[in-house]
Amino acid sequence: VPTTKRRVGRPRADDRPDTGLSPREELLDAAAALFVSHGYAATSTRAIAERAGMRQASMYHYFAGKEDLLATLLEGTVAPSLELATGILGRSEPAAEARLWLLCRADTALLGAGRHNLGALYLLPEAGDARFASFHEQRARLKDAYRRLLAATAVGAGLDEAELTLRAHLVFGLVESVILARRESAAPGDAALPEAVADGALRLAGLSPRDAARAGAAGRKHLRSGAS
Amino acid sequence: VPTTKRRVGRPRADDRPDTGLSPREELLDAAAALFVSHGYAATSTRAIAERAGMRQASMYHYFAGKEDLLATLLEGTVAPSLELATGILGRSEPAAEARLWLLCRADTALLGAGRHNLGALYLLPEAGDARFASFHEQRARLKDAYRRLLAATAVGAGLDEAELTLRAHLVFGLVESVILARRESAAPGDAALPEAVADGALRLAGLSPRDAARAGAAGRKHLRSGAS
Repeated sequence: VPTTKRRVGRPRADDRPDTGLSPREELLDAAAALFVSHGYAATSTRAIAERAGMRQASMYHYFAGKEDLLATLLEGTVAPSLELATGILGRSEPAAEARLWLLCRADTALLGAGRHNLGALYLLPEAGDARFASFHEQRARLKDAYRRLLAATAVGAGLDEAELTLRAHLVFGLVESVILARRESAAPGDAALPEAVADGALRLAGLSPRDAARAGAAGRKHLRSGAS
Repeated sequence: VPTTKRRVGRPRADDRPDTGLSPREELLDAAAALFVSHGYAATSTRAIAERAGMRQASMYHYFAGKEDLLATLLEGTVAPSLELATGILGRSEPAAEARLWLLCRADTALLGAGRHNLGALYLLPEAGDARFASFHEQRARLKDAYRRLLAATAVGAGLDEAELTLRAHLVFGLVESVILARRESAAPGDAALPEAVADGALRLAGLSPRDAARAGAAGRKHLRSGAS
């Protein structure tokens, strides 16, 4: 649901237009905007609460503090893809190649979605801290799911462990590169990008262009059939 | 040349060990460390000068200010690759596929080199400003060089304009993904990564795995022959 257009960078008055967001979502949205534009250290909980149109004390009803907000935002960039990956790892249909395509497509779409470039939060110096261990663990599990899906493909079955790890790393990197691409105004159209990245990811993984196109077609068919 | 190990995050005394860096390089190194860890807005020219072991007034002998330092750092992440790209675009040897491989390899190595992850500066909110137009222009020219090299390959010659632009965008994204990968401790060995990225970039571009391996072999041979 598109929200009402808002002026960015100033606290909103209490009579602000209804954004359709819950107070919790308002707080996450405000924190995301401020962390992405001013960084973590320079953002106060007071500024976050003000931007979300509530008192600082009320904020603590929803989040334990700034750290909790950043942890929630970071985890939100991987949790939906990890859930999808876990689901499709346990299935045998469609073929592994098409399932890898589906994961790449969904993950790219997730990183490209939303008003704020949440993937950019990965590069905050604080994001590397042990206090965000749950995010790191989920991201590592997601990356491992890419590796396991790749291992289940015909190409992956022929690779040694080191090469498999390397190719999964490159595929994961290609998907995450949309984080950097969001900084560019001249980047190709958002709508088509997730499928184009997924097509490219299969070629990068080592499928021949023809096999990659076939797996992409199977992935698209699966999507259009309404299955998830 | 590896510099003497230093403690990070505190200004160095005037009797600091000789790092082998010129005052100008000391300033760039100090600015890079502070911009990457604290962001642009929170970093003062005084803190940069102190970290470089000089007075603030002396700093202005080398740089016009903070903006000049960030512009210089940003341009340093693209200028060497743009120079290489311009050189190899004008040549006919080795084949376009191997030249694209050489560009991907060199660009990946550049982004992976150095003590600081300078590519992370792309995601600073300030980096998007018009005052860094020269950096944006050089980066756009570099991306266009990727596109032109890809167009000169056998695969690229068969693509329409939109698909050519898209694939160049993906290849450029794969190379830049090393910026995000540098945040990970578990990333595959740095030394082998530039060539692995270049191999993958050719597959991503649309070469068959066999043709990509051949072009990679030609690129490696060209490198080992001492040509640049």
